[in-house]
Amino acid sequence: MVGNSFGKNFRVTTFGESHGPAIGVVIDGVPPSFPLDIDAMQKEMDRRRPGESPYASGRKEPDVIEVISGLHQGKTTGTPLTIIIRNKDQRSEDYDELANIYRPGHADFTWQKKYGIRDPRGGGRSGGRETAARVAAGAVAGQMLAAKGISIVGHVFQIGFIKAEKFDAAYIEQNPLRCADHAVAPRMMAALDKAIGDGDSLGSLVEIRATGVPVGLGDPVFDKLDARLAYAMMGIGAVKGVEIGSGFRCVKMRGGEHNDSLTADGFLGNNAGGVLGGISSGQPLIIRLAVKPASSIARPQRTIDADGNPTTISIKGRHDPCIGPRLVPVAEAMMALVLADYLV
Amino acid sequence: MVGNSFGKNFRVTTFGESHGPAIGVVIDGVPPSFPLDIDAMQKEMDRRRPGESPYASGRKEPDVIEVISGLHQGKTTGTPLTIIIRNKDQRSEDYDELANIYRPGHADFTWQKKYGIRDPRGGGRSGGRETAARVAAGAVAGQMLAAKGISIVGHVFQIGFIKAEKFDAAYIEQNPLRCADHAVAPRMMAALDKAIGDGDSLGSLVEIRATGVPVGLGDPVFDKLDARLAYAMMGIGAVKGVEIGSGFRCVKMRGGEHNDSLTADGFLGNNAGGVLGGISSGQPLIIRLAVKPASSIARPQRTIDADGNPTTISIKGRHDPCIGPRLVPVAEAMMALVLADYLV
Amino acid sequence: MVGNSFGKNFRVTTFGESHGPAIGVVIDGVPPSFPLDIDAMQKEMDRRRPGESPYASGRKEPDVIEVISGLHQGKTTGTPLTIIIRNKDQRSEDYDELANIYRPGHADFTWQKKYGIRDPRGGGRSGGRETAARVAAGAVAGQMLAAKGISIVGHVFQIGFIKAEKFDAAYIEQNPLRCADHAVAPRMMAALDKAIGDGDSLGSLVEIRATGVPVGLGDPVFDKLDARLAYAMMGIGAVKGVEIGSGFRCVKMRGGEHNDSLTADGFLGNNAGGVLGGISSGQPLIIRLAVKPASSIARPQRTIDADGNPTTISIKGRHDPCIGPRLVPVAEAMMALVLADYLV
Amino acid sequence: MVGNSFGKNFRVTTFGESHGPAIGVVIDGVPPSFPLDIDAMQKEMDRRRPGESPYASGRKEPDVIEVISGLHQGKTTGTPLTIIIRNKDQRSEDYDELANIYRPGHADFTWQKKYGIRDPRGGGRSGGRETAARVAAGAVAGQMLAAKGISIVGHVFQIGFIKAEKFDAAYIEQNPLRCADHAVAPRMMAALDKAIGDGDSLGSLVEIRATGVPVGLGDPVFDKLDARLAYAMMGIGAVKGVEIGSGFRCVKMRGGEHNDSLTADGFLGNNAGGVLGGISSGQPLIIRLAVKPASSIARPQRTIDADGNPTTISIKGRHDPCIGPRLVPVAEAMMALVLADYLV
Repeated sequence: MVGNSFGKNFRVTTFGESHGPAIGVVIDGVPPSFPLDIDAMQKEMDRRRPGESPYASGRKEPDVIEVISGLHQGKTTGTPLTIIIRNKDQRSEDYDELANIYRPGHADFTWQKKYGIRDPRGGGRSGGRETAARVAAGAVAGQMLAAKGISIVGHVFQIGFIKAEKFDAAYIEQNPLRCADHAVAPRMMAALDKAIGDGDSLGSLVEIRATGVPVGLGDPVFDKLDARLAYAMMGIGAVKGVEIGSGFRCVKMRGGEHNDSLTADGFLGNNAGGVLGGISSGQPLIIRLAVKPASSIARPQRTIDADGNPTTISIKGRHDPCIGPRLVPVAEAMMALVLADYLV
Repeated sequence: MVGNSFGKNFRVTTFGESHGPAIGVVIDGVPPSFPLDIDAMQKEMDRRRPGESPYASGRKEPDVIEVISGLHQGKTTGTPLTIIIRNKDQRSEDYDELANIYRPGHADFTWQKKYGIRDPRGGGRSGGRETAARVAAGAVAGQMLAAKGISIVGHVFQIGFIKAEKFDAAYIEQNPLRCADHAVAPRMMAALDKAIGDGDSLGSLVEIRATGVPVGLGDPVFDKLDARLAYAMMGIGAVKGVEIGSGFRCVKMRGGEHNDSLTADGFLGNNAGGVLGGISSGQPLIIRLAVKPASSIARPQRTIDADGNPTTISIKGRHDPCIGPRLVPVAEAMMALVLADYLV
Repeated sequence: MVGNSFGKNFRVTTFGESHGPAIGVVIDGVPPSFPLDIDAMQKEMDRRRPGESPYASGRKEPDVIEVISGLHQGKTTGTPLTIIIRNKDQRSEDYDELANIYRPGHADFTWQKKYGIRDPRGGGRSGGRETAARVAAGAVAGQMLAAKGISIVGHVFQIGFIKAEKFDAAYIEQNPLRCADHAVAPRMMAALDKAIGDGDSLGSLVEIRATGVPVGLGDPVFDKLDARLAYAMMGIGAVKGVEIGSGFRCVKMRGGEHNDSLTADGFLGNNAGGVLGGISSGQPLIIRLAVKPASSIARPQRTIDADGNPTTISIKGRHDPCIGPRLVPVAEAMMALVLADYLV
Repeated sequence: MVGNSFGKNFRVTTFGESHGPAIGVVIDGVPPSFPLDIDAMQKEMDRRRPGESPYASGRKEPDVIEVISGLHQGKTTGTPLTIIIRNKDQRSEDYDELANIYRPGHADFTWQKKYGIRDPRGGGRSGGRETAARVAAGAVAGQMLAAKGISIVGHVFQIGFIKAEKFDAAYIEQNPLRCADHAVAPRMMAALDKAIGDGDSLGSLVEIRATGVPVGLGDPVFDKLDARLAYAMMGIGAVKGVEIGSGFRCVKMRGGEHNDSLTADGFLGNNAGGVLGGISSGQPLIIRLAVKPASSIARPQRTIDADGNPTTISIKGRHDPCIGPRLVPVAEAMMALVLADYLV
């Protein structure tokens, strides 16, 4: 396996298994003398952690970050910044009975075929735990971007058939679903409760916005800014689609409607989603992600074991029935990493 | 500008402006002794060329490929393969009046802001002409993949509000819209005729399928196969969204419905789109692209010139009113390049 | 600062400062299921450590390796392997008086000019301590190469004017200078004792040989195997020259003498040093490094402080007067990392 | 084969075989609006060409450069700059009898073993002709560096046992050996005449100096400036050793002698060769290359054919008996490419 690094100039390499001693990240390319706010980083980590909400996995990890290089007296030294997060909740026994069965929707089958071995303890590198390291790196990038006037906000726009209709940024972190619409959040919860009751899960749509992005990021051919964003976002597990600006709605639009007219005061719309010809336009970057319904469900599913014998599987324990809410900080982190690669 | 290369092991670098002497591509990583079918490559080039159809740009380019390195007596030598395509139709005078005006939906504004200069002759590297070099490289990759049993087919699934309902692969190249449904194609044409009559354009949805893909391509963290595909596809101009398998439809699905059950005879569905945990499953890869309506339209649009003065622009001449059909070979090429990077 | 990674397929990223909490390395691209011998790794670490010899730095570090990811029940998992080495001897007070003075021959001046800040505590990333992480990674690579029949041995060929005349591999680790000639080693020590008595240091020549290397490693243009080796070796601090095979002796040779004749039984000589046209020939790889005399010397030297005022500096404490012996394991590690990038 | 690209930000990809239709180079990362002096580039090309001197290969190539992209009205556009050089002298018949025999000192043996096929027409990519493309790219880089006050000069310091003792830059291009000492050049020629008379060749030492280099180029760990230079220079065919500053002479030096003292007026010496801790110090960069005697000699040599049968080979025709003089422009080009990667 290679491919555990992201970025060129602000280069992030994550490591660690769900059930090994620790996970972590090395960031190469951190500028020197930046005062890093460790408490703020820890708060970002806490946002990704499963909490007490009924809509979150039962795994309990304090996710305390430990900076072991690149920081001196609270400031970055310009050398690689390494962050370690010790694993506490290594309940590998929970996974024993799954060791030999391919869970539908998971990487079990492909991992086994590719590597010939498979870590049965919760997905190894393909599980969600790896994303904690991304969030840690994204928190570093995010602080540096904030110092340049860039802010990144994500929210859950849709769960199942229920869509948000308003955008109240302040409300996002006040509800377990990270919905920005306080009138709609209870309906999303009700839909989720119903799915949970059925031993099932729901898909969702996550939106990430970056504001304050300067004009000129990105390159016009293969390395378009939107291409990099798509790569970053589709590299998050459970994401099945990525769109920018008008996205898939553009299919039904006409050019005269889709083109964002230019005036002396700026663009009249943002169907472009902040990118024209692969280069940022100075408008907000708006990305949406289709997040599949959680694959770990209590409902019995048909599958096979590693010997090819048909069997039935029912995933026990508490798992996020809707991945979107906990994926918001991860997608924000990836947005931050993409932008930091240009700006830091 | 950097970023004119794609891939790591089958590494493609494109070059050339719309209105310079030539465009072309160097491919580093071509295996030796492969018998390259130049006629078949030329046919791929012809598929991308504007034809006689009323739905294509008026620019006429023969797009004759010339291999100037890496080939000896019809076989690859294993050294860099370089293909040149001379530009014939360098009508830069057509663009004179656009030199100072930002066309809405184009890269004019961002290019000017980023580079401080701008090639007024048809978009330079950001225009569609650069994609001819991708198609040439994709044709090389495609032949090598075909020798391994992999085939790639694209078609236009939707134009505006009109969707294909059947998939008849043989029909795709028999109609100018590359629609796979002979009953629906005429309705798409009618919709396009109407848009053209209004001096406007339509969006579209393009689907690319790769079959015969072996299990095990891709890596589980940042370099997921689907992440690479998203990067490749979003790097095509006019693409506003990319989805794999169920894509954005997954938002409204439940886990029990979305998970592809495994049986001794294989998967029971392909909501995954051929990728699980970032690694190919052996099922067909299915990617869909949202293609925005063409930005070059005859209808007058509000915009500004390079000095910031408001003006109105109306793009003259014949331009593709729907980009999807001509984008199909480009998207097929990008699929081929992604897969060749693993397999060649 | 970027550039803390080495390799493409067996990709090593080192981190950590001399006087921070820890140094370490992440290796991306480790194959799964390899039984890693941690004790043997620790022995490699011990070889690099300053020992009790009078020819070694006074810094005492146990250099105990701690594997925090990528290993399960003694075998690699195929995921990133992370090794941490805690710093124990963080005597930063020793460096206080050096904080404002540029030590001749050190990176102090250029570091300050490039980054604007400088870690006064022993060189930060530019000190020798960073090489401990390389040795740890090289030990992993070395075990994997050994399993393929490749062995790597280094020794100190020359110190000052004294050259080894015989090569007794067994003797190398039995003397503190890593000289392979037991008759010459005492003379080298006498020369070093004299230099130490003068408050001075000596240069040296280190040779690294790799045997069992298969034919075919390397590429013929920019990425020649010898080019990669030169990059790897010149990337070790204190190395001022790299040569392969005949090296600089080739200047005085004729073609008829230099060309290694081919016979049915193989090559008749190895002036090539194991590489022809950038590709390994199957003969032993033989690389030599010119290692400058240690810059940290007791003798007073002219220099300036950060404000440009002239001053005199005399480096206190015990430092390696000849860097070659401790550099041997580092150069062996770099050889292993270059080869592992092709083979692992 | 991969590895035909060099650099990250000023990224050069060369292509073309000795006996195909053309060779050339694509440069990605050229800044826009630079007025390129094509005549000056052509003069650089002419410097590398075999001339009328008795010390040069008999191959006659005009090496006319043709810029096919990236240039508009004499200025760079910021898009990839592509230069093509048509091959005229494709006398592949000369090579027919060599097709099945491994020439000692050449890449024939390793190429055959690695790729399974081999282009018998003069070395394909491993012959000297590929370097014409490097010189073209280096000429572009060189002009851009000159605009920043950086100049690069190379010369042949030693041939066989004869060393230059003076450095007269103006004389370098006035003698066919590129020796900077007009008193010594005739003695070098006499030595070469003698070697030619014996059907043999001589080794040489080439020195490259870059002046005007700013402080701060390079990175402190793996990507030291000297490491990159070593990689660049060892990637030139026939180079067996690379040294910087004091180079191999440092072996016999003491620290007090080797350390370049710092004064308020700058460094008192340049044993460092312009690099301290991997970062440029602002002093001249001084690199020396050991260049092996030409492998193509008239003297009969023992070798084997592709079937392993012993035979004798005598290389007919006129070949450079000493590679150093023609390698000077190539090494200058590589120096320019390394520096351009930081500065352009």
